[in-house]
Amino acid sequence: MGVAVLGLGTVGIGVVDILSKNRAMIFNRSGVDLEVRKVLVSNPNKKREIDLAKDMFAKDIEEILQDDEIDVVVELIGGLSPAKEYIIKALEAKKAVVTANKAVLAHHAAELFAVARKNNVPLYYEASVGGGIPLITPLTESLVGSNITSVMGIINGTTNYILTKMSTEGSSFEEVLAEAQRLGYAEADPSADVDGLDAAHKLVVLIALAFDTHIKLSDVHCEGIRKIDPMDIKFARDFGYAIKLLAVGKKTDLGIEARVQPTLIPLHHPLASVNNVFNAVFVESEEVGEIMLYGRGAGRYPTASAVVGDIVSAARILSGAKSQLPRKFAMGSAVSVKKTVGCYYIRLMVEDRPGVLGEIANILGQNNVSVASVIQEGRAQDQVPLVFLTHEVNYGSLEKGLELIGRLPCVREIANVIRVERGY
Amino acid sequence: MGVAVLGLGTVGIGVVDILSKNRAMIFNRSGVDLEVRKVLVSNPNKKREIDLAKDMFAKDIEEILQDDEIDVVVELIGGLSPAKEYIIKALEAKKAVVTANKAVLAHHAAELFAVARKNNVPLYYEASVGGGIPLITPLTESLVGSNITSVMGIINGTTNYILTKMSTEGSSFEEVLAEAQRLGYAEADPSADVDGLDAAHKLVVLIALAFDTHIKLSDVHCEGIRKIDPMDIKFARDFGYAIKLLAVGKKTDLGIEARVQPTLIPLHHPLASVNNVFNAVFVESEEVGEIMLYGRGAGRYPTASAVVGDIVSAARILSGAKSQLPRKFAMGSAVSVKKTVGCYYIRLMVEDRPGVLGEIANILGQNNVSVASVIQEGRAQDQVPLVFLTHEVNYGSLEKGLELIGRLPCVREIANVIRVERGY
Repeated sequence: MGVAVLGLGTVGIGVVDILSKNRAMIFNRSGVDLEVRKVLVSNPNKKREIDLAKDMFAKDIEEILQDDEIDVVVELIGGLSPAKEYIIKALEAKKAVVTANKAVLAHHAAELFAVARKNNVPLYYEASVGGGIPLITPLTESLVGSNITSVMGIINGTTNYILTKMSTEGSSFEEVLAEAQRLGYAEADPSADVDGLDAAHKLVVLIALAFDTHIKLSDVHCEGIRKIDPMDIKFARDFGYAIKLLAVGKKTDLGIEARVQPTLIPLHHPLASVNNVFNAVFVESEEVGEIMLYGRGAGRYPTASAVVGDIVSAARILSGAKSQLPRKFAMGSAVSVKKTVGCYYIRLMVEDRPGVLGEIANILGQNNVSVASVIQEGRAQDQVPLVFLTHEVNYGSLEKGLELIGRLPCVREIANVIRVERGY
Repeated sequence: MGVAVLGLGTVGIGVVDILSKNRAMIFNRSGVDLEVRKVLVSNPNKKREIDLAKDMFAKDIEEILQDDEIDVVVELIGGLSPAKEYIIKALEAKKAVVTANKAVLAHHAAELFAVARKNNVPLYYEASVGGGIPLITPLTESLVGSNITSVMGIINGTTNYILTKMSTEGSSFEEVLAEAQRLGYAEADPSADVDGLDAAHKLVVLIALAFDTHIKLSDVHCEGIRKIDPMDIKFARDFGYAIKLLAVGKKTDLGIEARVQPTLIPLHHPLASVNNVFNAVFVESEEVGEIMLYGRGAGRYPTASAVVGDIVSAARILSGAKSQLPRKFAMGSAVSVKKTVGCYYIRLMVEDRPGVLGEIANILGQNNVSVASVIQEGRAQDQVPLVFLTHEVNYGSLEKGLELIGRLPCVREIANVIRVERGY
């Protein structure tokens, strides 16, 4: 299947890269063999992070539309025009379209979808909200039988980064914004992010899917985060809340509520621990209750991966039913846990007398078990817990050490040995 | 499209119910009109929570296989036999199969998938892992172009409930298990849950999808939670960790690691705040980084909703490309924020003198704004913050109250009015 990419910015380069690097894996998983045949850019001579053959640059959109070998057109130009016109032309040329363009969807989804239906070709847009987080597909497919009652999302990474930093460092909005601009997390003109417009675009897309209703962008009540003071974050925490820029869509008796605004959310709510540039969408439905989908809402490869998922889905549909079948798996086996390397929590029950820690620590050291932390609590009882957290160790070495420790007269019991995941 | 349901237990009843109740919505969203035509149960005369016409009960599997009006067979019998045989027969009769059966997949996925491919019909299994959480679809479709490096899941609700209660109440495993059994969160024979076997089944399914490799169930290193003592939970927290029963699949230089075991996970890790019966799967990939999918891992309607999502996907494929097109949306509008009801955080900057709180509280009360909490901090400065958290209030009333408050001589500034989401 042939693919054309319109626009070679951050995401476009990522898409071309993934499709080329992972071509065999994608074919093995999906049964579709994808090749980027053409790209369309305004200036083919611009220096880019990717080298493409000269003949891959289409001279105009017509060249792509008329190319019978191109099945899927990927729109990564962004903005309203010419993105909208190109999407419509591609659909009318019976090509599947994949877009990451939240603006064009927020303004024209109903019209674009009608054109897709009329021409009987797929139009996919997983990357338009939440970057690499699977959102559109779960909402469209997994929840197709569910009555969604609300969607609440942290769907702008820049503002979430700023609020997180203000929260952890107590700094002002202006200070953190300046830092975010230095680090490239915020644009020179940050208003689309910090005033909530970016999130409002995405909310319109989410509301359409959740409530089967396309609302106007101007219907979204939109407030940004400029007015949030570190003092507000502190008071909110005193009340038991975090402040997040939430995009909220709700079905109420009055109709659909649609708002993007700084919002207090209880500290125990899963959205409250979504920090830094991470995004998450929390969906409530009558049938499924609460779901949260969490991940990186932006960035070259996360977003490009979502685009590639859409390209594959579209290509599968175009190529007919056969490629929709379950994957082929290799038959394999797992590594024995004894060969694995990890950190461990070890709780021993030991005699409460001087020298015990030394004896045990020596044996651990001799067996290459390096200790990260120890808790020793005297309890004036017959036996007391002695707890270690180790650095990374081969499980075999650990077992050997523990066997020797188990034989020490001062050790009553190796009560628990628990694996530790250090996480990300 | 006709659907047959094998097995009418908790989930089966939920599927029949959702397909009937939400039939029009599903048709509108997907273009497929689904009807349950037959069910297969071992005892048709058993009293059930659902009333079905007598002629809906098939006398045996053959009746379903030979019924040309049945396109999708939903296997909700569970266990290995006759579930496996029925799935194979249905696939060979060219019917799409949807199953929620993690056991049959953990043992026979490779064989079943081969049969599906050979017969060119879909075999879907979203509900087999994580109940209502979209997991299989995102892994299969959205991440098709991504190299997954690890999956870590809390995929057994019973054990997560027990560990959460042990953690919050300091109770022993035995005490909490007994309570969970009373509440119906744990089975009379809890061993499949508490010894990790249920999670191991699901891990085999996740590993197959993540690493394109089917491993044997016996390859999973499997430890349960019986040995965890409240003391361990406390010491883990002292070290900065929570203890969770994690199912972990990792691609390492040595091969695939596959283990289900109690695991220490840093308190700041998103999995550490997955509590009670909630499930979550954390996926890391080279392209997308970290993703977490969170929700209810069991229960009638969450699981049935996942099954219905699969039925729709299968039916769409069987009915050809046309129904894969973008949804039709109604054109709608959102309610004005002024009409909505919510709780608010209000920060005023006021003169630091006696009586100010009373004046302001009076006006709030007169405008039906009920105050939930107040923070008043004297700072011996010209102006001090006075912060309110309100109960639910109509935004219009609040605005009116705030306008009057803004006119008070003691009020220097209405510094911030922030919406509160109370959450779930």
